[in-house]
Amino acid sequence: MGRKYSIGVDFGSLSGRAVLVDLSNGDEIAASMLEYPHAVMSERLPCGTKLGADFALQHPQDYLDVFAKTVSEVISKANVNIEDIVGVGIDFTACTVLPVLNDGTPLCFLDEYKSEPHAYVKLWKHHAAQDEANKLNEIAEKNGEKWLSRYGGKISSEWLVPKVWQVLDEAEEIYNRADRFVEAADWVVWQLTGEETHNSCTAGYKALWHKQEGYPSKEFFKALDSRMENIIGTKISETILPIGSKAGEINKFGSELTGLKIGTAVAVGIVDAHVALPAVGITDSGKMLMIMGTSTCHIVMGDKEKPVPGICGVVEDGVVSGYFGYEAGQSCVGDHFDWFVKNCVPASYTEDAQKSGMNIHKYLREKAKMLKIGESGIIALDWWNGNRSPLVDADLTGVLVGMTLATKPEEIYRALIEATAFGTKVIIDAYEENGVPINELFAAGGIAEKDELMMQIYSDVTNREIKISGSIQAPALGSAMFGAVAAGYFENIGDAAKIMAKVKDIVYKPVAQNVEEYKKLFAEYKILHDYFGKGANDVMKRLKEIREGKENA
Amino acid sequence: MGRKYSIGVDFGSLSGRAVLVDLSNGDEIAASMLEYPHAVMSERLPCGTKLGADFALQHPQDYLDVFAKTVSEVISKANVNIEDIVGVGIDFTACTVLPVLNDGTPLCFLDEYKSEPHAYVKLWKHHAAQDEANKLNEIAEKNGEKWLSRYGGKISSEWLVPKVWQVLDEAEEIYNRADRFVEAADWVVWQLTGEETHNSCTAGYKALWHKQEGYPSKEFFKALDSRMENIIGTKISETILPIGSKAGEINKFGSELTGLKIGTAVAVGIVDAHVALPAVGITDSGKMLMIMGTSTCHIVMGDKEKPVPGICGVVEDGVVSGYFGYEAGQSCVGDHFDWFVKNCVPASYTEDAQKSGMNIHKYLREKAKMLKIGESGIIALDWWNGNRSPLVDADLTGVLVGMTLATKPEEIYRALIEATAFGTKVIIDAYEENGVPINELFAAGGIAEKDELMMQIYSDVTNREIKISGSIQAPALGSAMFGAVAAGYFENIGDAAKIMAKVKDIVYKPVAQNVEEYKKLFAEYKILHDYFGKGANDVMKRLKEIREGKENA
Repeated sequence: MGRKYSIGVDFGSLSGRAVLVDLSNGDEIAASMLEYPHAVMSERLPCGTKLGADFALQHPQDYLDVFAKTVSEVISKANVNIEDIVGVGIDFTACTVLPVLNDGTPLCFLDEYKSEPHAYVKLWKHHAAQDEANKLNEIAEKNGEKWLSRYGGKISSEWLVPKVWQVLDEAEEIYNRADRFVEAADWVVWQLTGEETHNSCTAGYKALWHKQEGYPSKEFFKALDSRMENIIGTKISETILPIGSKAGEINKFGSELTGLKIGTAVAVGIVDAHVALPAVGITDSGKMLMIMGTSTCHIVMGDKEKPVPGICGVVEDGVVSGYFGYEAGQSCVGDHFDWFVKNCVPASYTEDAQKSGMNIHKYLREKAKMLKIGESGIIALDWWNGNRSPLVDADLTGVLVGMTLATKPEEIYRALIEATAFGTKVIIDAYEENGVPINELFAAGGIAEKDELMMQIYSDVTNREIKISGSIQAPALGSAMFGAVAAGYFENIGDAAKIMAKVKDIVYKPVAQNVEEYKKLFAEYKILHDYFGKGANDVMKRLKEIREGKENA
Repeated sequence: MGRKYSIGVDFGSLSGRAVLVDLSNGDEIAASMLEYPHAVMSERLPCGTKLGADFALQHPQDYLDVFAKTVSEVISKANVNIEDIVGVGIDFTACTVLPVLNDGTPLCFLDEYKSEPHAYVKLWKHHAAQDEANKLNEIAEKNGEKWLSRYGGKISSEWLVPKVWQVLDEAEEIYNRADRFVEAADWVVWQLTGEETHNSCTAGYKALWHKQEGYPSKEFFKALDSRMENIIGTKISETILPIGSKAGEINKFGSELTGLKIGTAVAVGIVDAHVALPAVGITDSGKMLMIMGTSTCHIVMGDKEKPVPGICGVVEDGVVSGYFGYEAGQSCVGDHFDWFVKNCVPASYTEDAQKSGMNIHKYLREKAKMLKIGESGIIALDWWNGNRSPLVDADLTGVLVGMTLATKPEEIYRALIEATAFGTKVIIDAYEENGVPINELFAAGGIAEKDELMMQIYSDVTNREIKISGSIQAPALGSAMFGAVAAGYFENIGDAAKIMAKVKDIVYKPVAQNVEEYKKLFAEYKILHDYFGKGANDVMKRLKEIREGKENA
């Protein structure tokens, strides 16, 4: 038997990419990327229709374009026989959802709905359903819905039910016309195979589904809005396949779109963060992966279902079949540094960086690296975009304490790095205190790949070794692994990982003295975290109310 | 009788200036300035001797140079007959102190002490006597010294006794050789007149002297250091003249130095901030002057001596004879904005400001002016240089709360302005709550002169009208007024003020709606102020200890 391959397709927020992988060793033979032609629509639709505040829409045609361009391109670049490509796996951002007809046609493809915003895809970061999320949380809490504890006690406006409810509130005709609301992850699989499937990862983390208990009750949905009483089993499918299953096979349409052979196995869709775990070799419990980019996701599997306050969710089969996948997150990691560079770096630094031929982030990191731990005297709370875990509070805002007239930009920059590390430690502590042990720590994503200073600080703050993803395309690699499992090439994802998973040789190790020094600073962070985050002083919320009064005035 | 004139000489931190004033109307006929040739010596002496951390020395020859250049220049510029110049008044920074021989010769003029740092002038911001100040406070508190309450409960390292004690600790030979330690304000008067005098303003605010009780006891000084037991009446003079007195007359040396006629009246010296009160017309109780520059002094007179926690001091005859002069302060006002501009303004703003031909402060203010009150959602604590009043704590540091990914530089800039206004309101409230009423508010100094946005915010935050000094040289004008009083041209400073004091036509008036909105933000400021400033969370002190550990490591 000659070499065999699979393809992973990773749909991100602004682009999609395909990677063709050698199943004998996990080598990435070819890659291709397409930026979405419509990107994220937050101001207007293509026809000019103006969008409301906090809208973030996408156009499903862009996803088909990604298949058309990137899959055919990796096949031709790699110059392999399509007979030898055994499977395809796909991951997607979530909850990214669209209304479709029974045959999968997006409502926004219909002429009559081209200028109707609610007919389009709502991207994960569409935040305009906050009112619905607030009402949902209130009702769920009042009714003592016990599934609430699986989601850390609070549902995000980013998730499925608030988004669908917003459609009903603002565009009842679209709601009525939609046969299904479907995750984009499942919709693209449907396009390639002609089979409608729904995966346990998005259903569990984003749609309140539970393997044993199913969805929340009719009564609950009726309490939200009587028109939603029967939504489960109609507009929201109850047929859920576990991660690692085969969704179907490439059909004629899929073959014409991608150049893949009819009959090629396609795995059920999965969320882009969760799919990265097998790519670094995590296929069982106790190993946390941090996917570090503009924000960070912390995913770990456990052997049992435990309520952990402030996590985003725990889902059986959510990552690997047979385990309970836990997800937590920090809303603002790389975003902090982008904000800082855009708003707080003086011209003299910009010029110096240019002179020395350095990217400004690199320049600041070089300066920050020279500082001793605690030398700046500054502590930050990393809440520029709220706190996702464990406080689940989008209304929290950033804090800086300790500036003097001698404070330098790199001192604030380093304090922001440290704050995100402290935030991660709070999350790890929350897992462990609630019976989900973390025995090993892994990192993937742009920051893990590039930022040695930050990774060393994370290692010192958490007092743990950190292993780094060997692939810079960990989600696409993970998807390719699931594609191979769906094809039956591997028995299960664990076997695939043994052959294909990759971590770098470099391992960040905690330095004993740094660990001791960061303990002191973390203690200060924790005091401020609890003071501002747990109700002792709700100044941030009051300031936000005052601010919002101004914006609406 | 033809027109008569007087001259005010104002000695600042980096330069001295003389103003020649028409006594019939207060018009400033001529002005002249000299930057001190030796500026502030904080690294080395002229001979190369290296200075310790936090040293800030000056060379007394520079003060003589100021007389020589600026007084003769205003006389020749104004083209007046020296017969018509009736008096000279002088103000100085304080506590700015030097060791001298009995005849007034500075020890640093002696060849054998040219390379001895402690033989030079210690400028007010010489902060190297902090250890002595700490020990002094500890002993004074332990012994229940009741004068402590006149200084808000704590003595600053900037004041006389810690500075003299540091000389004893580090250069006993200089201490022993000094016949007197004398305020520079008094030393320059001595040079012009040949008369050694000591003024009630510096003695009261900086040297622990009290009109009725005199200095602290022998026992107290002995408790500090047995070698200091008899310092009062020997190295520190007990002969104190009230503000508004005549110190003497220009003698031969003074005449040769300045070009003034022998016999011209010279007033006793006074502190540069305090002398500004008569210049805006304040000569009695209930009217506060804010002298706003890199830092702000808040001075008001009362009819009685009341202990006000956290003030810098209360001194009978400290400003105008017959009243109790109260002083409080904010350590960091203009300094905030200079720090911000140097460290936190992005290159794009710097370029835009240049293109539009605006100074960067003006550019930021224009942007900040467009913001509605509360729109930024940010509250700052204005403690980048500690808190002088009412917390008297140099170890406090700056705070920013409320940043998001949408926060813009001008929002932080405006939050810093507002924080200094809130800080002023806390001080005004402290005066009023402790029985020192503030009925009118005045402002002088560079910020009062130039910054309309800031002054309007102060008016809205304090809910008071603010009158602005009519002279940009308020201290020199005030000194000229005291010169005329010393000459007997006016009966007292009140009479001088009626003719010569000046305020601008513009008066900043609180806008009712703004006042209401700032009440909400001030409430938030006060909660944070008390939390970080009054022991609930001493994070700033702990971070500073950690930081200092690093610096010494």
